[in-house]
Amino acid sequence: MKNARRFLALIGLLFLCGWLQAQNSVEDVMSFTKPASTNVPGNDYPRIDAEGRVYFRLHAPNSTNLQVDICGKKYPMVKDEQGFWTATTDPLVVGFHYYFLIADGMSVIDPATYSFFGCNREAGGIEIPEGPEGDYYRPQQVPHGQVRSCTYYAESQKSYRRAMVYTPAEYETNLEKRYPVLYLQHGMGEDETGWSSQGFMQHIMDNLIASGECVPMIVVMESGDVAAPFAPKRGENPNEARNQYGATFYDVILKDLIPMIDTTFRTKTDRENRAMAGLSWGGFQSFNVVLPHLDKFSYLGTFSGAIFGLDLKNCFNGVFADADKFNKQMNYFFMGCGSDENFGTEQMTKSLKEMGIEVTFYESQGTAHEWLTWRRCFKEFIPHLFK
Amino acid sequence: MKNARRFLALIGLLFLCGWLQAQNSVEDVMSFTKPASTNVPGNDYPRIDAEGRVYFRLHAPNSTNLQVDICGKKYPMVKDEQGFWTATTDPLVVGFHYYFLIADGMSVIDPATYSFFGCNREAGGIEIPEGPEGDYYRPQQVPHGQVRSCTYYAESQKSYRRAMVYTPAEYETNLEKRYPVLYLQHGMGEDETGWSSQGFMQHIMDNLIASGECVPMIVVMESGDVAAPFAPKRGENPNEARNQYGATFYDVILKDLIPMIDTTFRTKTDRENRAMAGLSWGGFQSFNVVLPHLDKFSYLGTFSGAIFGLDLKNCFNGVFADADKFNKQMNYFFMGCGSDENFGTEQMTKSLKEMGIEVTFYESQGTAHEWLTWRRCFKEFIPHLFK
Repeated sequence: MKNARRFLALIGLLFLCGWLQAQNSVEDVMSFTKPASTNVPGNDYPRIDAEGRVYFRLHAPNSTNLQVDICGKKYPMVKDEQGFWTATTDPLVVGFHYYFLIADGMSVIDPATYSFFGCNREAGGIEIPEGPEGDYYRPQQVPHGQVRSCTYYAESQKSYRRAMVYTPAEYETNLEKRYPVLYLQHGMGEDETGWSSQGFMQHIMDNLIASGECVPMIVVMESGDVAAPFAPKRGENPNEARNQYGATFYDVILKDLIPMIDTTFRTKTDRENRAMAGLSWGGFQSFNVVLPHLDKFSYLGTFSGAIFGLDLKNCFNGVFADADKFNKQMNYFFMGCGSDENFGTEQMTKSLKEMGIEVTFYESQGTAHEWLTWRRCFKEFIPHLFK
Repeated sequence: MKNARRFLALIGLLFLCGWLQAQNSVEDVMSFTKPASTNVPGNDYPRIDAEGRVYFRLHAPNSTNLQVDICGKKYPMVKDEQGFWTATTDPLVVGFHYYFLIADGMSVIDPATYSFFGCNREAGGIEIPEGPEGDYYRPQQVPHGQVRSCTYYAESQKSYRRAMVYTPAEYETNLEKRYPVLYLQHGMGEDETGWSSQGFMQHIMDNLIASGECVPMIVVMESGDVAAPFAPKRGENPNEARNQYGATFYDVILKDLIPMIDTTFRTKTDRENRAMAGLSWGGFQSFNVVLPHLDKFSYLGTFSGAIFGLDLKNCFNGVFADADKFNKQMNYFFMGCGSDENFGTEQMTKSLKEMGIEVTFYESQGTAHEWLTWRRCFKEFIPHLFK
């Protein structure tokens, strides 16, 4: 009986120590981390330390198996006696990353995070803060433009669609002035909200306009018809399937979107005042829209463009074959990518340069196929437009 | 041996029959249902039949327990041999409903749906279509206004915030004209995106302006600081805690938001041209902003307003005590609710009328504390503004 009491007291003490340790551990984490800016208000976790490690903690007492799926790696979560699950990641690159929880094999969104459209669905997301570099994509005490959600009817698709349109701050007061337009596309599995919600394009525009680095312009973002997954049908030629992915957008932009923008906004409508750029699949789409229509566009940018296997001499009706002609027509041609991805961008710009094509190559150091690459590409690209 | 073969053949046949039946069942459902408009592209499910039943089907072979949580009821999902989980709901009221999956006790978003900020988090959502009534909140072939995301700095909170601002179509071309402003708030646990994403206020505005039922106006929506849950601290007076929930918004709207709107947009800035309305907690906030500031507002609306226990004779410095004075100051005072909820709206309007206060009571038939109630209230309210 005495031994039993001692045993129970010991068990109790062990539980208390475990509990205290768990409490300390949570307090410790709280002391050297900050909640992510992407957390829904009221959520202390996920938290981030100075090296960019993310600390997850959530209460799911009835779950049996949870993992965090972020930046291409799955981290097992560990459950404590109170039903709290925790995991800590490796240091992550600054900027925005999608992430999911895997609950018994099902990929779901952490209830603590805002969601962002990407990966062909609503996805969780986390913003890893950084030092001074990031100031260009954060709101500053400068005049702020707006991102406008515009409903419009696309005759080519017989359906209502939505475009997101950035207008610079001065658009509200310079009522006589007309503006050049950049059409800006996201990647496969994302939509028209990507560049503002994940890319912070509105803050980059505001800051670069305020500093005089870029001219005030209108920026138009549309879904691009790449929200659904790329899924070739059985027996379909993979190249043909790839060319068809998001191809409905080409009629939309040329026949419906540009006319809608030019009748709704105070735009300059000639080719000298129209640009197009896109990231990943949006880069591929930009090639497909701009290169056959140099009567309508005179600027082109790709950021980690998904442009593979092009026969540069013959593609797009031989547009690159006559370099002098191309260089005269194209006011600025930019191709950027991250140093830690392999989309063949540098090699392609080398080949183009060997053919005499004037193209700017930019490499974002230490970043892969991710939003920091594209924020940086955007910042490098826009100062060269409409000057 | 022979028996064993027969037995195996029988088992095989049974599996085949079960599989065929499952296939038929899926084909049957496909034949009399349509995918929800709230589905992410590429998802056939959830689907909806003519009576408003929702059919869920998702592939989660490793999950052990899934439920659908919608309109206050939990529906167990059933798993087939291929790992597909299905459930069918009762007929649901038309309009928008939040929903979740419960995976082993954890409430998560169905990967097939777009997400909507509500319930203090990102939530799944489904739009139940209906007949002719809904046309007023669907896009029609009329001029379309815009919903603009506006970043601004709130000095009262020392932080950047976001307002969503609807501008009517003619705002783009009537460059000399100034417009009245309606401030419009969502409910507890929602944010500035609620009225456009769940409420379709932009379509209701477009349609009622086009039909001449309401005058062109600017509509401003802000987070209202009610994204985090209402959570009184231990020992806190519950009434005081309730009054403090979202109370930081009062300084924001009066000191930061209204000045920002009046300097950024072409507004009419006098009390005759400023209105405020809100749903649920936003109704409570509208009372708290408008009634002490009748020098700034002359229209007030509550839709299922969360306004309880008011001492009508003495509240807000006795604003209702002098009915003649109040009626002269207030151009239009609207209080609406659903017939299937019990927020005390009708009783409160009766008491106010007994005191001589001119107030319009509206009841949405067959709806509860849900978005169809609020779309209808909004449609009833806006034709009375600024005339």
